[in-house]
Amino acid sequence: MSKRLVVALSGGVGGAKLALGLSRILPADELLVVANTGDDFEHLGLSISPDIDTLTYVLAGLDNPVTGWGRRDETWSFMDSIGALGGEEWFRLGDRDLALHVERTRRLRLGQTLSEVTSDICRRLGIGTRVIPMSDDRVRTRLRSDARWIDFQDYFVRQQCRPVVHELAFEGVAHARPHADIMTALRSGDVRAVIVCPSNPFISIEPILAIPGMRDAIKASGAPVVAVSPIIGGQAVKGPTAKMMRELGLEASAAGVAARYGDLLDGYVVDHADAKAVRNVGARITMAKTLMTSLHDRETLARVTLDAADALVS
Amino acid sequence: MSKRLVVALSGGVGGAKLALGLSRILPADELLVVANTGDDFEHLGLSISPDIDTLTYVLAGLDNPVTGWGRRDETWSFMDSIGALGGEEWFRLGDRDLALHVERTRRLRLGQTLSEVTSDICRRLGIGTRVIPMSDDRVRTRLRSDARWIDFQDYFVRQQCRPVVHELAFEGVAHARPHADIMTALRSGDVRAVIVCPSNPFISIEPILAIPGMRDAIKASGAPVVAVSPIIGGQAVKGPTAKMMRELGLEASAAGVAARYGDLLDGYVVDHADAKAVRNVGARITMAKTLMTSLHDRETLARVTLDAADALVS
Repeated sequence: MSKRLVVALSGGVGGAKLALGLSRILPADELLVVANTGDDFEHLGLSISPDIDTLTYVLAGLDNPVTGWGRRDETWSFMDSIGALGGEEWFRLGDRDLALHVERTRRLRLGQTLSEVTSDICRRLGIGTRVIPMSDDRVRTRLRSDARWIDFQDYFVRQQCRPVVHELAFEGVAHARPHADIMTALRSGDVRAVIVCPSNPFISIEPILAIPGMRDAIKASGAPVVAVSPIIGGQAVKGPTAKMMRELGLEASAAGVAARYGDLLDGYVVDHADAKAVRNVGARITMAKTLMTSLHDRETLARVTLDAADALVS
Repeated sequence: MSKRLVVALSGGVGGAKLALGLSRILPADELLVVANTGDDFEHLGLSISPDIDTLTYVLAGLDNPVTGWGRRDETWSFMDSIGALGGEEWFRLGDRDLALHVERTRRLRLGQTLSEVTSDICRRLGIGTRVIPMSDDRVRTRLRSDARWIDFQDYFVRQQCRPVVHELAFEGVAHARPHADIMTALRSGDVRAVIVCPSNPFISIEPILAIPGMRDAIKASGAPVVAVSPIIGGQAVKGPTAKMMRELGLEASAAGVAARYGDLLDGYVVDHADAKAVRNVGARITMAKTLMTSLHDRETLARVTLDAADALVS
């Protein structure tokens, strides 16, 4: 009997697109999405989990198709009002989006774990796919620019990725435990593939891989690990991936991303535009259209990625 | 030199109308509004102070003129979204209003007092009048209906005042300290009048008077105490005052309210419609139009009330 479970490691926007594609071609109980929580932060007293939020909205069909994050049909009265009361305005929280942060914060304060809250909210929104935070323990991505350490959202939203990044750190990760359900899945002997979604390697995927035991468990699962390149034609589709690679002294290319993942990768799905760039990558290359504009694109890329994984074990 | 300071005890909607009138006929430093906090509660993890909120919005000109509570130009996207996530929907929080609750909750969790938060937010909204919570200590109004004790907002909002009220209690009041600025004012020897706004005596004014030392300090201030009747023509303008009086075995009338305040009152401003009802009230009666529909009504009633107070000492 063939193995059934697909484990997808995902950040926000780009990752959520592929996660949605996977969720539409796989039965709900055959997909487990592991969400980065290194971007999580507390803002205006609320506990915000940007990648879980994006995954939740995308998988529930509530996402804003224009921005890729936040909710559709959003209104902004809260933001219009908070500044006059002395509240910070640099991180924009829509009125509908706020419901998720307020409800999550309330439950966390009652002692529920992030994964419990996430699981219940996904269920209430009709999401069959399991979305699991990489850990219920606190991990916070920080970036060093010259001598100064910056919180991730400060860098990403407030400073719009302008600071030059010299180093990254995942505060708390040394003591963070991977979520038990992830480890149970990886050890089940039933993992068909581990998919590394086309998210920023440094700020979306590496926090997940940095959780003690996670990388080893992925390797030990025996499942093929296939990444989808977040770089198309040498550029990041969205976000600071390419800029960050250059600043870190890495090659800002699909090959540079593969090199960063190193021996974790068995397969690598790259865009046709990057065919030449990945000639010397060790993983088995699959060429595809990786820009996901339509829902059809998401499903097609999910299928290509799974096929690439399946081909590695046949 | 005549005494200058007017201290107004106020609940929400009706009280805020008179407080606004007073704020418009007095210099900012001659009015101190003492706000009931017995209605305060925690909802969806947020700290809500309904009477302070109403006073804040009314004094800032941000109030909803139709409802008398909440903000004008309000939107409801948050409420539209919270139910699907499992959040309670019976207490309606508008998107703009939410900004105040989120910001207050954030600051209280940082260790600021309710009075510090209130004072800063009033300042930011351009309110010159000082609005001071009766206490920074937690007091919670509860009501007994038959054998069951009910939280105030449960009774007031969720059950829309339907339960028969047999008893009231102000949980925590025995250990609550009156706000120091209120006591300093009352002991200053400079109090021109203490105005009891036309709020529900049981749930808006009595929690204030029940703070240990408050009633004595009012008496000891030597200032005339003048109440404005919340009953017009034997009916409450808004809310459960008359119903509650009947249920508590009291006369549901302007005279019944005066009797409830007892020897605290020196003067009593009642509506022309209640002229006959107050024949046997001990306090000096002033007849007026007490229904405040327009801004002019609010200012006029404020003036009449102050004149009544001044007449008691001349």
